[in-house]
Amino acid sequence: MSLYVVGIGPGRIEGMTLEAKKILEKCDLIAGYTVYTELLRPYFPAKDYYSTPMKQETERCRWALTRAARGQETAVVCSGDCGIYGMAGLLLQLQAAMEEAKDVEIHIIPGVTAASSGAALLGAPLAHDFAVVSLSDLLTPYETIQKRIRCAAMGDLVICLYNPSSKKRAGYLKMACDIVLEYQKPETICGCVRNIGRERESVQILSLAQLRDTPADMFTTVYIGNSTTREIAGRMVTPRGYKDV
Amino acid sequence: MSLYVVGIGPGRIEGMTLEAKKILEKCDLIAGYTVYTELLRPYFPAKDYYSTPMKQETERCRWALTRAARGQETAVVCSGDCGIYGMAGLLLQLQAAMEEAKDVEIHIIPGVTAASSGAALLGAPLAHDFAVVSLSDLLTPYETIQKRIRCAAMGDLVICLYNPSSKKRAGYLKMACDIVLEYQKPETICGCVRNIGRERESVQILSLAQLRDTPADMFTTVYIGNSTTREIAGRMVTPRGYKDV
Repeated sequence: MSLYVVGIGPGRIEGMTLEAKKILEKCDLIAGYTVYTELLRPYFPAKDYYSTPMKQETERCRWALTRAARGQETAVVCSGDCGIYGMAGLLLQLQAAMEEAKDVEIHIIPGVTAASSGAALLGAPLAHDFAVVSLSDLLTPYETIQKRIRCAAMGDLVICLYNPSSKKRAGYLKMACDIVLEYQKPETICGCVRNIGRERESVQILSLAQLRDTPADMFTTVYIGNSTTREIAGRMVTPRGYKDV
Repeated sequence: MSLYVVGIGPGRIEGMTLEAKKILEKCDLIAGYTVYTELLRPYFPAKDYYSTPMKQETERCRWALTRAARGQETAVVCSGDCGIYGMAGLLLQLQAAMEEAKDVEIHIIPGVTAASSGAALLGAPLAHDFAVVSLSDLLTPYETIQKRIRCAAMGDLVICLYNPSSKKRAGYLKMACDIVLEYQKPETICGCVRNIGRERESVQILSLAQLRDTPADMFTTVYIGNSTTREIAGRMVTPRGYKDV
């Protein structure tokens, strides 16, 4: 009995790995957030789909484990990489608490996470050491988020922010910028990528001071450069330090 | 005139994205570190290949830019993601200094980085905020590496270490563990993944105290858990914090 947790990469089907495609082709059931199951349906039409809106991740994962336990080849799909703010961890946790799912083998199929796909559109902001922090406080205390931003800035790490904003927490990106501004210059090079791999994909390079007052939403990935990050011919680059350049 | 920088994912061809495969199929020339060009040769036999050993990245990238400028469809391949410790940044930097390459369009094709592919083998160690730090001091001062490890540990970020060791710096992993031990308990859950996607792939879950005395090489990716990371049924999991589990 197998359950596959599959990272499908950024929005377009071409961002999926060959392995992910092969697994979705052989599964009977595909479960996921509605946006992603709708994306897959035209490519894998002969499947059963099960989709739930956001914030019902636990229910969706329990359902998938139950189906897999009954012998159906089941895939849970996540955008990007299923291991980075994805469902892989939740499924492993749930399985440990579900007697009926104890014999299900969970296979984790990684994908291209938004940090990588957004970086490729901007240039090479993550070519050296970096931190990935989510600004969503749904599951994480606000103080923890602040502490992590502060420590990453102190360490002169490039910072990639997931979920930088939502209606309820419009000021979070500003808060993050204000913390980084204690350690980095206002002219530090930053980048925003919106709707990666989807319609209305867009890329913006700006200073940390400008980023502070820039609107972002749940489909934006934000990059805050470090002391070495530069703009080179319209691209955001954090040099790795090759001496012969 | 186009130059493609292509992240080919972990070792096996199945870890490549559909887009990466399509681009390699249409290119005339493929340049890269010998290990990766040898991996690709059987799948894309009708290409010209150009490979150089490690530490000749700049020369290889200059060559590729020159060829692209002459009108040949050229790909530079990197393992994992070309934007994370890969060649994307170096190529953008070199192009800016090469008059003859100024009209080359550099396209960056992201891939699954080792942080993601190794995490999938361990469980879900990166399911919450994390830092990625390379322990290689070829291009980075030792003090900078130490500071980044310290700040990441202070921030209770999970830490993923690239290039954890080599013959010349056998003690670096121990140094990193000693720094983290100032902030995290000796029993903190850690993981090592060796030879991801290749022969002799192996996975090990161990405590931070054990990791301190564990040998690693350039083909090992190391994960140091944070205060919430747990071992669940033989897998390393950093819970994201779902309350209904």
